[in-house]
Amino acid sequence: MQRLLALDVAAMADADGLQLRLTKPPGSLGHMELLGRQLCGIFRSCPPPEIVRPLVLVAAGDHGVVAESVTPWPQEVTAQMVANFLGGGAAINVLAREVGAQVKVVDAGVASDLDDAVGLIMASHGRGTANIAREAAMLLATAADTIVDGRRVINELIDGGVDLVVTGDMGIGNTTPSAAIISSVTGATSEAVTGRGTGIDDVTLAHKRSVVAGASSRVSDPTSATAVLAEVGGFEIGFLAGAMLGAAARGVPVVLDGVISLAAALIGTLEDAALPQYLIAGHRSVEPGASIALSWLGLDPILDLGMRLGEGSGGVLAVPIIRASGRVLREMSTFDSAGVSEKLS
Amino acid sequence: MQRLLALDVAAMADADGLQLRLTKPPGSLGHMELLGRQLCGIFRSCPPPEIVRPLVLVAAGDHGVVAESVTPWPQEVTAQMVANFLGGGAAINVLAREVGAQVKVVDAGVASDLDDAVGLIMASHGRGTANIAREAAMLLATAADTIVDGRRVINELIDGGVDLVVTGDMGIGNTTPSAAIISSVTGATSEAVTGRGTGIDDVTLAHKRSVVAGASSRVSDPTSATAVLAEVGGFEIGFLAGAMLGAAARGVPVVLDGVISLAAALIGTLEDAALPQYLIAGHRSVEPGASIALSWLGLDPILDLGMRLGEGSGGVLAVPIIRASGRVLREMSTFDSAGVSEKLS
Repeated sequence: MQRLLALDVAAMADADGLQLRLTKPPGSLGHMELLGRQLCGIFRSCPPPEIVRPLVLVAAGDHGVVAESVTPWPQEVTAQMVANFLGGGAAINVLAREVGAQVKVVDAGVASDLDDAVGLIMASHGRGTANIAREAAMLLATAADTIVDGRRVINELIDGGVDLVVTGDMGIGNTTPSAAIISSVTGATSEAVTGRGTGIDDVTLAHKRSVVAGASSRVSDPTSATAVLAEVGGFEIGFLAGAMLGAAARGVPVVLDGVISLAAALIGTLEDAALPQYLIAGHRSVEPGASIALSWLGLDPILDLGMRLGEGSGGVLAVPIIRASGRVLREMSTFDSAGVSEKLS
Repeated sequence: MQRLLALDVAAMADADGLQLRLTKPPGSLGHMELLGRQLCGIFRSCPPPEIVRPLVLVAAGDHGVVAESVTPWPQEVTAQMVANFLGGGAAINVLAREVGAQVKVVDAGVASDLDDAVGLIMASHGRGTANIAREAAMLLATAADTIVDGRRVINELIDGGVDLVVTGDMGIGNTTPSAAIISSVTGATSEAVTGRGTGIDDVTLAHKRSVVAGASSRVSDPTSATAVLAEVGGFEIGFLAGAMLGAAARGVPVVLDGVISLAAALIGTLEDAALPQYLIAGHRSVEPGASIALSWLGLDPILDLGMRLGEGSGGVLAVPIIRASGRVLREMSTFDSAGVSEKLS
């Protein structure tokens, strides 16, 4: 696989220069200016092109670890929520409509037969992973295949015009493998990375932490994407890692959501260390592993709204702000063009 | 003037109940759920109506205190930026286009003749305030008039269909009166509230603080909106306070921007203590007075992007998130309607 290009330094320098000529005090748009600069680097153009076809790619998968009662939600909810996504009634559908993004849903390994679901992208590698409290989540070869699938599917979607990808997820129990991935890759303890997910009590949290610690301790090589993914991962996490790598290879920015997206970003970054340059953190999930993964990736999220839903919900809400950061560079007048006096030195 | 109604408690209770039935873990949309609840309370309906005509109201005014060299920007920039707003090339125009908001610009007291500017709303009370380092900014009667003007103008705009107002400002030197208002009303020291505005050095900052301290110390009654506004205020600040009160009286939410908006919100709240119920903090400005004013008002901002531009730029970027919070209540399916199983108890 060809390595990712570093971002376009010349386009980013042009962005820095342009920001100083726009009719505003230097630096006064804060984080927006850094976002605009990153878009220029990714799109290799200053100003960056308009983002016209943003996509939320929601990958769904089930997790054998639900046998450990790490979540109060029944596993059937994964498939039910896939149907809800396809019907347009879930949070991610509503939020995507608000910002003008389309939603595509992938079966990366749901524990139900979804073959007849209209509009669903099929990329299943099994009816849920094995129980990581007892054994590896999947075979090494399967882990590699999920990444390949993610690359393939995102390539097809980008061929269709997608110019920004928000990564979303659905999978009852999936904060447990995500925590195990974050612990394995970053070296943070299971206590530090494991949170209450969609809502668990203290006893369940303690058990979830021991599951995360046990599973992470089995990872043979924490620098190998497939080794980590096979031992403690999830089908949808591998798929999202592949989608991120595929989008970056095409020069398309990727907006991350919560801990599942972040776990996938860690896997993707083990595959190619340049990946984080193409990533934009949409929202800081309240899950504790999120902040640890964000630090490891060197990303500073756009939003901090106390959300912990997944689906891409935190990522998609950042889309208007990302688009706006590029629009500033395309449409703002300069001191010269507007006849505005500059700051006295 | 009739007092503001408290928000509709029944509509807010309905929102809380509905949030629990929507297909997501309870509380998982974080701040979005509180925003949706507030919209229901303001619009007195659950779900709240769609917000279709958001407006950024940018009030411009000049400040005699620029004679004290509290800013490196020449005063002529206020009028030049008004022209830039009317021409559509300023940051606020670009950001408003991104989120589908219109921009209206008001001359509340710019130190230039803008009578022939096409599209400008005229509500001027002078060619800039007096220098608050030496004397009161304006007469008590003028202070009252600026508030009346803000009420009148926003009423006309709401008659035209506006259903959400973002408050914006322009005025070289206006972080100085804003800091003085925040200090006077909240009791915080001039050191605590005074920042670098659009960019000043240490010597200028020290002088700016002494100006803020001196001006604030002359305020005869820090609980009187007009006393504070007349002594240390600005024409555009009074205008925005009036616009906020007028919007709230019509049941229209107000989105705040940075320290100038916040200073106006403090003035408005001295007039009617129920005003903050109608306010939504769009962005946490890096100006130190912002966080002090936000605490006093009991508001938690949606965004924290390190911005310090004014114009309504931080407020307008929050609009898609505010709209989305209402859309969640209107459009998400419930566990019953989507056939999704609930959390096990």
